[in-house]
Amino acid sequence: MVLPLRLIPRLAAAARLPRAPRPISRRARLAPALAMAAAYSTGSGADRRLLFRQLFEKESSTYTYLLADVADPDKPAVLIDPVDRTVDRDLNLIKELGLKLVYAMNTHVHADHVTGTGLIKTKVPGVKSVISRASGAKADHFVDPGDKIHFGNLFLEVRATPGHTAGCVTYITGDADGQPSPRMAFTGDALIIRACGRTDFQGGSPDLLYQSVHSQIFTLPKDTLLYPAHDYKGFTVSTVEEEVAYNARLTKDKETFKTIMDNLNLSYPKMMDVAVPANLVCGIQDPPPKI
Amino acid sequence: MVLPLRLIPRLAAAARLPRAPRPISRRARLAPALAMAAAYSTGSGADRRLLFRQLFEKESSTYTYLLADVADPDKPAVLIDPVDRTVDRDLNLIKELGLKLVYAMNTHVHADHVTGTGLIKTKVPGVKSVISRASGAKADHFVDPGDKIHFGNLFLEVRATPGHTAGCVTYITGDADGQPSPRMAFTGDALIIRACGRTDFQGGSPDLLYQSVHSQIFTLPKDTLLYPAHDYKGFTVSTVEEEVAYNARLTKDKETFKTIMDNLNLSYPKMMDVAVPANLVCGIQDPPPKI
Repeated sequence: MVLPLRLIPRLAAAARLPRAPRPISRRARLAPALAMAAAYSTGSGADRRLLFRQLFEKESSTYTYLLADVADPDKPAVLIDPVDRTVDRDLNLIKELGLKLVYAMNTHVHADHVTGTGLIKTKVPGVKSVISRASGAKADHFVDPGDKIHFGNLFLEVRATPGHTAGCVTYITGDADGQPSPRMAFTGDALIIRACGRTDFQGGSPDLLYQSVHSQIFTLPKDTLLYPAHDYKGFTVSTVEEEVAYNARLTKDKETFKTIMDNLNLSYPKMMDVAVPANLVCGIQDPPPKI
Repeated sequence: MVLPLRLIPRLAAAARLPRAPRPISRRARLAPALAMAAAYSTGSGADRRLLFRQLFEKESSTYTYLLADVADPDKPAVLIDPVDRTVDRDLNLIKELGLKLVYAMNTHVHADHVTGTGLIKTKVPGVKSVISRASGAKADHFVDPGDKIHFGNLFLEVRATPGHTAGCVTYITGDADGQPSPRMAFTGDALIIRACGRTDFQGGSPDLLYQSVHSQIFTLPKDTLLYPAHDYKGFTVSTVEEEVAYNARLTKDKETFKTIMDNLNLSYPKMMDVAVPANLVCGIQDPPPKI
């Protein structure tokens, strides 16, 4: 059964043990966490709640992001934009770190690689797939703009950033006490470092992308860390301040931007005919046959 | 003239303007910093002094690290293990961020890529190259174990971690108030994530490498972030705690480790005959001819 995330909190609240209140939550009972508690703080020295890992898939130049609340005894974790080829690497790391993966999330229906979400679900029962309702893809949970996705006492906010595809979203760490500071935004292909995703298929629109980035990303605090779904030059992170100043496309006026995007003359993505149909069902639901 | 870094502090102290005391320092008069002040804090919320960037060179799977003190008006910066092919990318980023590059440092004489140090020195007058005295390479400054390399009010400590080469060092953020927390260690090829550098040339020794990692790296606080010179699987960072638990080679006893290292049967590095001679003079000192 597919339930929108925002409809679940009351149900979840009734089922769970007493805890600090969380306005919106979807939370299963988790197995006891393993021993490892290694944390990577991006917040204050006192708040080493967030474990964060950036993982790279070389063939498609895709970044997968692992976030976990390691101050929660269950160490609940989410994966953003996992790739099918690197699922075993990611799941092994999650196991080593003693995390409990709860959500495998996509920023959009990718055209350049097959998401790892389906494969993860076959390998780790209980993990739920998450994608935007506007994507038109299948998933366990659909998210809409303004939704919050909780893992432990951390959460991600959902912002609609269409334009690369019609269903693109950006996931942003919460704007509240105890959440990572500076904030972190996982922009998918809406904004990549000094550039942006193409807008010539899958409901893409330069007009819409320009509007999305300027209204939803460039308005974030200037020190917000921007983590894209891809990088082709070896950059790992940027900030709102940097992209507002130096993005080669999105610093232009809208008409110039549209002219740039309409004249990129990019080739047809080599993975598109495989990736898009698979990703519309959140990846390959069955493990690929052994050859 | 080549001066060891540790001999310079008194000279530097006499020349510089009044500032908070720093026990060891080598510091030129810097140009006023540009406008951009984007910072990436790994420290406490109040201390966003450190700007940190991890940069990837895909062909040799090399990580280059940029660190800067953005709370210092000069925004002094260091680059660890720059690659010749990505020098323009790195220098452009440094310019955009308004940083003043002071040191281009190497963890060792690399065999798999040509360092960008020489090229950087031709493009940015005033930048000084840094490598260990034990490396046998040429540089502006040689470092020895225990030395501190200051940039603004931040500093890196030098630890000798030979075994991959005879001159390998690990650079570690300072153990003092106001320095990044958790600490960050740039391990070169002494320790790579879940593995280590080969030990079959350039004065390599499995015995020595085992001793180096166990005495100099595994003894750091368990939350110390480990940043290697290479990763071939898409990992970006690890911790002491993780490697002590999961490193596939270095968790073994020394005899088993030596057996593993003596039986890797690796091929001769394809870049070795180009890279090592160049890196012994800190990279190509003149820009390559235009073809």
